[in-house]
Amino acid sequence: MPSDTMPAQSPRVSLDFTKLGGLVTAVTVDADNGEVLMVAYMNEEAFNLTLETGRVHYFSRSRNQLWKKGESSGNMQEVQEVRVDCDQDAVLIRAKQTGPACHNGYRSCFYRTVDESRGLRCNAERLVDPKLMYGGKA
Amino acid sequence: MPSDTMPAQSPRVSLDFTKLGGLVTAVTVDADNGEVLMVAYMNEEAFNLTLETGRVHYFSRSRNQLWKKGESSGNMQEVQEVRVDCDQDAVLIRAKQTGPACHNGYRSCFYRTVDESRGLRCNAERLVDPKLMYGGKA
Repeated sequence: MPSDTMPAQSPRVSLDFTKLGGLVTAVTVDADNGEVLMVAYMNEEAFNLTLETGRVHYFSRSRNQLWKKGESSGNMQEVQEVRVDCDQDAVLIRAKQTGPACHNGYRSCFYRTVDESRGLRCNAERLVDPKLMYGGKA
Repeated sequence: MPSDTMPAQSPRVSLDFTKLGGLVTAVTVDADNGEVLMVAYMNEEAFNLTLETGRVHYFSRSRNQLWKKGESSGNMQEVQEVRVDCDQDAVLIRAKQTGPACHNGYRSCFYRTVDESRGLRCNAERLVDPKLMYGGKA
């Protein structure tokens, strides 16, 4: 079928992994209330697995390996929606979060606010003692 | 005064700029409803200016220079709160956004959702024709 008679299709997602050396930035928010839970990074494999399995996967820069969120802590993230930004170098994941997203035991990694004198003030309750979270691995 | 008699203070914010070659990741959300507006990056100067001026500044990787958000488009971001994550390599900004955050004229840069066949579907209304936004600069 000639291309000019093909049905109209929405453009396919094609992320730009070049800006961060093979990674895109991933922001994950709580699907229930929109709270930003964490920022991490995905390589192409992690992005594909996130879409294919419905479980959020990242690429751990510190461990230099694929990171299925919650694999060691049990604190999984179930994908509800995946969005991409205008430059296609960042993704926004709406997920159902089991337990804390943060390896320090808080629901969100952003549990500290910078005050007017540049001090850090905790803005959240710790949900779980991180010593009980499989050695602190997230 | 000897240090052991100093009053207790909250820890001072000290970001880790080493992981992204002098940058931290910045996620900016709408202070009114928590919607994620954009993801960008800050160097130390941009972070300091954000705190000192109350206007969000980033570092533009494509232009390789400090970027005062809205300087050319008028679509400023007024800081309401700055949070830092557990690793201190990402910041979350709650801001009052004037007009669209996205250089394509949408309120949020995340105006497209990945559908089940990996197509991209627009999830938002365009607020402004980007041709009218100072040549499309954000």
